[in-house]
Amino acid sequence: MNILVTNDDGIFSEGIKALAQSLMSMGDVYVVAPDRERSAAGHSLTLHHPLRVEEVSKNHFSVDGTPTDCVNLAMNGILPFRPDIIVSGINKGANMGDDITYSGTVSAAMEGTLLGIPSVAFSLDTRKDFDFSVASNFSLKVVKKVLEIGMPKDTLLNVNVPHLSENEIKGCKITRQGKRVYGDAIVEKVDPRGRKYFWIGGDDLGFEHVEDSDFQALAEGYISITPLHLDLTNYSSMDELGTWRF
Amino acid sequence: MNILVTNDDGIFSEGIKALAQSLMSMGDVYVVAPDRERSAAGHSLTLHHPLRVEEVSKNHFSVDGTPTDCVNLAMNGILPFRPDIIVSGINKGANMGDDITYSGTVSAAMEGTLLGIPSVAFSLDTRKDFDFSVASNFSLKVVKKVLEIGMPKDTLLNVNVPHLSENEIKGCKITRQGKRVYGDAIVEKVDPRGRKYFWIGGDDLGFEHVEDSDFQALAEGYISITPLHLDLTNYSSMDELGTWRF
Repeated sequence: MNILVTNDDGIFSEGIKALAQSLMSMGDVYVVAPDRERSAAGHSLTLHHPLRVEEVSKNHFSVDGTPTDCVNLAMNGILPFRPDIIVSGINKGANMGDDITYSGTVSAAMEGTLLGIPSVAFSLDTRKDFDFSVASNFSLKVVKKVLEIGMPKDTLLNVNVPHLSENEIKGCKITRQGKRVYGDAIVEKVDPRGRKYFWIGGDDLGFEHVEDSDFQALAEGYISITPLHLDLTNYSSMDELGTWRF
Repeated sequence: MNILVTNDDGIFSEGIKALAQSLMSMGDVYVVAPDRERSAAGHSLTLHHPLRVEEVSKNHFSVDGTPTDCVNLAMNGILPFRPDIIVSGINKGANMGDDITYSGTVSAAMEGTLLGIPSVAFSLDTRKDFDFSVASNFSLKVVKKVLEIGMPKDTLLNVNVPHLSENEIKGCKITRQGKRVYGDAIVEKVDPRGRKYFWIGGDDLGFEHVEDSDFQALAEGYISITPLHLDLTNYSSMDELGTWRF
């Protein structure tokens, strides 16, 4: 079994180390990950400059690009075979609601899915005092299930784990993508040379109440597994638009 | 009427100029766009370094960030009001099928939608000899309709225009997102100092036949309008996953 591991926090993040370590009991683990943190990279590909790959240790490759670049290069340049599964994470911080469209962790799994490999993203819902043990144990269970049963067609799994002990976790729920309430946090300051700059913030204003959502599951102490696909068509509005006359 | 115009080809692209010019007959146009080409930027936000904004001419602001940054900054820092509509493009090249998840043009419209503003992305299906006249005329019609009728909830419009003359275009179709066939084009070379590098390519292998898809519409000579939303949940696989036991 060949497992490709990636992330968006960078190859030296504790989250990817815990994930790779845990998955080694399942098969051969190859890590191809960004050489630095690339959070909020979205599903971005580097098309306009070359990419460098460095083998930082046996079967561990760093890339000076995005998580999407890493998966694309791993599949088409670095690995001499197609992996059986792609696992992304464990991200420092949850990836739920609309945030998944910004997430490098989830985008790496999107890229894997587009390239035809079952892919799963794992994120841990905390910003500090990271303990990846519960999430990395659970990743092993999910990967086993995917390999045993098979992934639903054109689907990736977005897994968010609450930062609780094994005993405190109530279980696991299959969820839908929730909706965050967005703030308008931008910091406007002046640099040492008197020039103005902006810095994008990100107030955490919580989330809307959506039944069976990822946010809801974690708030209740459950692990959330959301099946995602890459068809963004809003089918329900096609008829409405069909009545517009141009 | 206040109209925010952005793109991913950069503020000096002919596509954004044609779009802004055309929309001026509708109201006050403000352009906030990347200072250079940022194709395939995906829905990426710049969180780890500051952003610079320059007013390159009256109501035209360049940002050294992604299309998503541009919309976010425009809304939360640059413009003193909320625009009535956000229009992104006109992109040099189509944005159809799964490509929309990489697209900076479409991601700018996603950001607008997340921030609660009706948003439309326009792309022209050619890679050379760009003639934006048909697309920019059509953009005016779409913007008028959106402002008159209102956008379906949580929806953005992804418009792709074939590179044909007004007479050759057969009409306009409401479509679903199609599926591209992806190649594995990566170029592996050696730099002048003997170090290996990779460059991500992108063979155009065409698209799968999907009834009513964006690709299909353009192949038949129609303008395609796809309603998109940001809920990536694959609802059809939730039941299936519910039977998995962890």
